[in-house]
Amino acid sequence: MATVEGCACTHAGGGGSSLPAAATSVTSDLREKALASRGAAELVRSLTDEVGPRLAGSTGSKAAVEWAMRAFAERGFANVHTEPVTVPRWERGEENGAVVAPVQQLLHVTALGGSNGTASGGVEAEVIEVDSLEALGRLPPGAAAGKIVFYNIPMDRSRDGSGYGRAVPARGVGAARAAALGAVAAVIRSIGTDHNRLPHTGAMRRDEKGQSVPAAALSVPDADLLHRLIERHKSVRLRLTLGCRWLPDAQSANVVAEIPGAIRPEEIVLLGAHLDSWDLGTGAIDDGAGVGIVVSAAQLVGSLPRRPQRTIRVVLFANEENGLSGAQAYAKSHQADADKHVAALEADSGTGRAYGLRYLGEPQARERLAAIALALQPLGIEPLPADAHGGADLGPLRALGVPMIDVAQDVSTYFDYHHTANDTFDKIDPESLAQVSAAFALLAQGIADLDGDFGRVPEPKRQPERRGPQPMSF
Amino acid sequence: MATVEGCACTHAGGGGSSLPAAATSVTSDLREKALASRGAAELVRSLTDEVGPRLAGSTGSKAAVEWAMRAFAERGFANVHTEPVTVPRWERGEENGAVVAPVQQLLHVTALGGSNGTASGGVEAEVIEVDSLEALGRLPPGAAAGKIVFYNIPMDRSRDGSGYGRAVPARGVGAARAAALGAVAAVIRSIGTDHNRLPHTGAMRRDEKGQSVPAAALSVPDADLLHRLIERHKSVRLRLTLGCRWLPDAQSANVVAEIPGAIRPEEIVLLGAHLDSWDLGTGAIDDGAGVGIVVSAAQLVGSLPRRPQRTIRVVLFANEENGLSGAQAYAKSHQADADKHVAALEADSGTGRAYGLRYLGEPQARERLAAIALALQPLGIEPLPADAHGGADLGPLRALGVPMIDVAQDVSTYFDYHHTANDTFDKIDPESLAQVSAAFALLAQGIADLDGDFGRVPEPKRQPERRGPQPMSF
Repeated sequence: MATVEGCACTHAGGGGSSLPAAATSVTSDLREKALASRGAAELVRSLTDEVGPRLAGSTGSKAAVEWAMRAFAERGFANVHTEPVTVPRWERGEENGAVVAPVQQLLHVTALGGSNGTASGGVEAEVIEVDSLEALGRLPPGAAAGKIVFYNIPMDRSRDGSGYGRAVPARGVGAARAAALGAVAAVIRSIGTDHNRLPHTGAMRRDEKGQSVPAAALSVPDADLLHRLIERHKSVRLRLTLGCRWLPDAQSANVVAEIPGAIRPEEIVLLGAHLDSWDLGTGAIDDGAGVGIVVSAAQLVGSLPRRPQRTIRVVLFANEENGLSGAQAYAKSHQADADKHVAALEADSGTGRAYGLRYLGEPQARERLAAIALALQPLGIEPLPADAHGGADLGPLRALGVPMIDVAQDVSTYFDYHHTANDTFDKIDPESLAQVSAAFALLAQGIADLDGDFGRVPEPKRQPERRGPQPMSF
Repeated sequence: MATVEGCACTHAGGGGSSLPAAATSVTSDLREKALASRGAAELVRSLTDEVGPRLAGSTGSKAAVEWAMRAFAERGFANVHTEPVTVPRWERGEENGAVVAPVQQLLHVTALGGSNGTASGGVEAEVIEVDSLEALGRLPPGAAAGKIVFYNIPMDRSRDGSGYGRAVPARGVGAARAAALGAVAAVIRSIGTDHNRLPHTGAMRRDEKGQSVPAAALSVPDADLLHRLIERHKSVRLRLTLGCRWLPDAQSANVVAEIPGAIRPEEIVLLGAHLDSWDLGTGAIDDGAGVGIVVSAAQLVGSLPRRPQRTIRVVLFANEENGLSGAQAYAKSHQADADKHVAALEADSGTGRAYGLRYLGEPQARERLAAIALALQPLGIEPLPADAHGGADLGPLRALGVPMIDVAQDVSTYFDYHHTANDTFDKIDPESLAQVSAAFALLAQGIADLDGDFGRVPEPKRQPERRGPQPMSF
């Protein structure tokens, strides 16, 4: 890309709450160019069609790293390199579920990520249904022993994805809680807003003692069916067969590339997304979209006539989905220069239009973002009062005090497809993806050229509340 | 049901183009009662939850016949009985598809009903894409030899389902045409309007020589993926493994029940739906909905204070989906009294609201239906100028001259789910199902009490055009 090599003239822009005319013209050109670009969608097409599913440790994961190196190089990025990450490796295998009594019905199930498999013949037991983790805790002693616990917790549709935060805890800890009560397996109603017979996977975890039981998600229609059968029959029995298993850890990598800063190259504006995906779909909305957004946004800034003052670093993280190993590796190896990270932004919310901006940094520096945010107003994006979260991959950097900026996207339909076989390229809206990419480009350029910075995240806000109402860890 | 045994007083209503006050009050009561009823939806729930999939010759098919006998008996129908039907038996088995070169991608595929299986290791070959049957015919000699033919024909969404008629022929004859050109298999883009990774099955047939090749449907997103790969790569290779197979014919049955006529019991108003379903879903919209509509409609007429003059006969046909054996058996065994069938109506269009009525009978008698149709106006249902089709199960009766009346339903979303695993009870809208059931009840009552009849279908119209623009064979 010629521009990365191009002119490095001194930036004349000022700080404060309004932008000078020259900057306004730059941002206006950048905005129009970004909106007209289909570069983000083309990146998603290429990644999903030519690589496809890319769960940590899989063949697809390796191919994705090679794809990313090539994509950066072809687009003229500088300092294109990988940074090693050790990732867990988990494989799905056969999966079958069925109601076996009092009627017979096949169920569409999928193992939760990280679940152990069942014994080879599967596990068969009576089902006990609960509508929350708390309800499980209130069961009489012994009520879940020997049974399959069914968490039937519907997820509400909303623009900000708040329904996910309310529904998802049972996916994470439900199987471990069931194990502690002597259950033999756990199934959850898929954490999703659709009514398709495509179950939603997602990570689960063991408890402190390492306890769990095999765990799977039922598609929403199958959860509804099971609920109706339980309502009408004294005893409903399920059979669940899961062939999933853990394999030895594998070597993977974060893929990193830069638009080098012309004036303060050691200062970093980090744009992140995750390169891995679940194995069921081709990872278009999660997180091909984010990859497309941040790579195309940085490329657009790199193609401006004037190189940005600070470095824009794109990080495509390994293994967000099954344990955040890429995020942890990055924070660990960059701990010493964490204070050189002026701000970090992550794109991991799919293809919906951006509508808001959230900020988390030194409170007095909030006005600096407000000034940059003026350039995003024509996109329909306004500052929001809530603190930024930062996204799952940025959590370890937030803990180190790196300021976070969220581009809030409309996720109303995101959870129709999230973590399912339905997460495919046809779900991508190239136009809205370009709008989000425009927002990232304007923010990256604005922050790279900003006089002053956002300070550090105050100590008490470095650890996000666990499962707040607006999680950005999708 | 007490009313079937109840009063048989002489009907006082007149013919002509308006309804007398007594009849108006009866129809108004019936309409309100039908709209308030959730009987149709409850029938669908019971059939889909307690029986589930019921492809001809399967265990579910047997259970469905028992379910229907019980459902009629519990609702007080008279003359509840089965009529024997010999049905073909076809089983699905394993099914897998994948792009194997130049990239690797799993494809969501399902065998077309009636396809032969592949050899056990599957078939692997280069793909050749065409966008119509005609395009296959225009290929240069030898172009399809040794290849897998991919019919990529999108289906348009419409209220009247006309897109289905345009897209579906390749499903029926595509594999046979491909076989004739030396292809080794055929895949089609699912005939559906959704973007879910749930392929749509449906019947295919051999040519006159008995030729065909293994045939499967790709889900719409998988067809899009394959199309994009073919656009960008010189050669794309597929592997397809289908374990489907034919078994010896099985014995099944049409299930028949009546609301006996008080005055002219030998004259029949036939309400039909099909009891079988494809194996992938639980057959809620196709055709649990139709079963719910016609059984609840007849039950509602049976529960009126005054018994209808003519007999209302409900026929739940065996095996509509894989060869129409139930329809043929009924027409054959009732050929002698075909002229006693005053009219026949089929419900096989899912859960969408009814908006129109079509007629096919003696042209001069059309006004008689118009008079009855007045009672349907408050439901938003108006007579349409096009001839009635009759539905797939009524084809053999139409050929015998039995007048047909179509209740045209809105099928805008029907083909999102049709013939897929997604055809489940959650797709049923109890309110619109009640509206359709109200239409069937009003028509059944009105025709049963009609002075005069609809004559016979004129000879030239007894054979429906093959694949007209508004097929009623869903």
